[in-house]
Amino acid sequence: MATRWGICSAGKISHDFMVAMKTLPPEDHQAVAVAARSLDDAKKFAKTHNIPRAYGSYEELAKDPNIGSYNKKNWLHHVVVGLRPKHDSLCADVVYIGTIQTNHLSSCLLFLNAKKPVLCEKSLAMTTKEVKEILACAKKNNVFLMEAIWARFFPAYREIRRLIAQGEIGDVRMVRSEFGLSVLPLPRLELKELGGGALLDIGLYPLQFSLMVYGGERPESIKTEGVILDTGVDETLVVTLKFSNNRMAVFTSSSGLQLHNDAIVVGSKGLIRFPSHMWCPEVMVVNGKETKYPLPEPHLPLNFVHSTGLRYEAEEVRQCLLKGMKECPIVSHADSLLLAEVKEEILKQVGVTYD
Amino acid sequence: MATRWGICSAGKISHDFMVAMKTLPPEDHQAVAVAARSLDDAKKFAKTHNIPRAYGSYEELAKDPNIGSYNKKNWLHHVVVGLRPKHDSLCADVVYIGTIQTNHLSSCLLFLNAKKPVLCEKSLAMTTKEVKEILACAKKNNVFLMEAIWARFFPAYREIRRLIAQGEIGDVRMVRSEFGLSVLPLPRLELKELGGGALLDIGLYPLQFSLMVYGGERPESIKTEGVILDTGVDETLVVTLKFSNNRMAVFTSSSGLQLHNDAIVVGSKGLIRFPSHMWCPEVMVVNGKETKYPLPEPHLPLNFVHSTGLRYEAEEVRQCLLKGMKECPIVSHADSLLLAEVKEEILKQVGVTYD
Repeated sequence: MATRWGICSAGKISHDFMVAMKTLPPEDHQAVAVAARSLDDAKKFAKTHNIPRAYGSYEELAKDPNIGSYNKKNWLHHVVVGLRPKHDSLCADVVYIGTIQTNHLSSCLLFLNAKKPVLCEKSLAMTTKEVKEILACAKKNNVFLMEAIWARFFPAYREIRRLIAQGEIGDVRMVRSEFGLSVLPLPRLELKELGGGALLDIGLYPLQFSLMVYGGERPESIKTEGVILDTGVDETLVVTLKFSNNRMAVFTSSSGLQLHNDAIVVGSKGLIRFPSHMWCPEVMVVNGKETKYPLPEPHLPLNFVHSTGLRYEAEEVRQCLLKGMKECPIVSHADSLLLAEVKEEILKQVGVTYD
Repeated sequence: MATRWGICSAGKISHDFMVAMKTLPPEDHQAVAVAARSLDDAKKFAKTHNIPRAYGSYEELAKDPNIGSYNKKNWLHHVVVGLRPKHDSLCADVVYIGTIQTNHLSSCLLFLNAKKPVLCEKSLAMTTKEVKEILACAKKNNVFLMEAIWARFFPAYREIRRLIAQGEIGDVRMVRSEFGLSVLPLPRLELKELGGGALLDIGLYPLQFSLMVYGGERPESIKTEGVILDTGVDETLVVTLKFSNNRMAVFTSSSGLQLHNDAIVVGSKGLIRFPSHMWCPEVMVVNGKETKYPLPEPHLPLNFVHSTGLRYEAEEVRQCLLKGMKECPIVSHADSLLLAEVKEEILKQVGVTYD
């Protein structure tokens, strides 16, 4: 049976997510409802993406019985007996939260408490405290939750994890990465009340990359230098992380500077490089040898670069749900918590806090 | 008349310097003597590079009358009247010091006090105190002195200075560069008594690049994280510099890790990149457009990468001497002093000091 998606927010990333979903088999993925704060927006979005139902509030989506809540008994029944369960007890349905991040806490709690599995855009929340609240809610309700760090499901990211685990470049000692876009002025990245600041949005990518390479280990030291906007949020940050056994990472994050946006992972026996688009790479170079991982073409214009790559996390979520998992090991709850804690420490060092 | 070079040290870099000199017109550059601590080494080097005289001590080279000392009167006579001055009063002769850096202080003082112009390999000395002593000695003797930061005379480096000055990429806000080689074990880089430590050797390149881009301005803040060898010197450093007006630089230096060794300069209107070999680039990319600056082929095998590019600093020294200059504005005495002070602060932050 198809995974039936509820789409929370009719914004830019939700649009791209829908375009990406169209690159997957319709028998596996279907968007069945969309909710926006404005019913008109939801209707327009539903029309564009051929979604049956549109809601003018997130609460209505949370109550939609067509997006099934996880039910182990029915899931087992389906898997073992091969019978089609009723639509309100399907195991692989999920809500995608594509709202701005100041809204993530309330939306996550809304859908998790409605027993609906959730894929929530990154950053999962504004603070460590909020992240803990969301994770506790998922656990309490025994419902799947994942932070939508789509980068980690790209084929090149899967391959880099495999190569590192197999010792292809020996012992990894350095990760250097950067993500900077010259996108200011842009309220979403400038204004604190909209969850602004580069780190929680752009900078999350090189940070999660660094943490991924070192297997989710907590850095022993964090050193930050940066440029803070008059609005009180970070524009540009340079962050150095030191892990156990003299392993290091350094990354740059910026909403004001268009950087080269490559990444390297340096080991005792070699070097792996994403020559560009480190957050959504189509090319990887391993010890000088280049491999391409081309993305499918979109059927509609995209808002963001390489967004058809959102297909990989969508399919990953489906596979996790089909297996009855409550979290994805590639972006685990522990990963989200560590990310939140490290982000908070980085921002504290340059005087940025969110209440 | 030719610039007549005295070569102090018959080591690896001196060899490459000689090979590079052979790519310049012999009527402009001639090596007339070489000195080593061992006469045999000096003789062997002299034979390889067709140098007339070989000495078993640096003192003998300092006394060699065939390497003329600067004399303004004779220089003016030469330029104005066009007469050939006597060989002991030529204005464009110079000693190249290619010894290990623990020796630089004593050798610089030796040749400067002998009124011989000096091109001394980087790092100019081990400490700020030593650098000040050398600069004062050059001033006292009114003799040309330059730290051999050969990178700055590469055509691509000249071009990047021109482009930045002309505002080609707008206001520069970020410099990111790295130089790391996996060369350990190597006594010269590991042992404190040999002047070991990556920063003074390898790390000098991205540091001088950062300082050059910002016009020799002193950074307002320096933050360092790193890995220190058991021998007490730095193996890997990540350094973040912040300059006035929110301009930043970050660089990595390593004697233990083979990095990608690129560099980018990011401005409000574009990006300039050395895709590799940032310390001796043959390629520069300006806003996506690549230009090649090929180096001449060596007539003998080289010890270091792209060493025929030493030709550019050799010719620059000649031009400075022909103009009667006492320092080169591209690597000025103030540049050498700032470099020394910033290096010392960086090393202090990770607990490395040289006595």
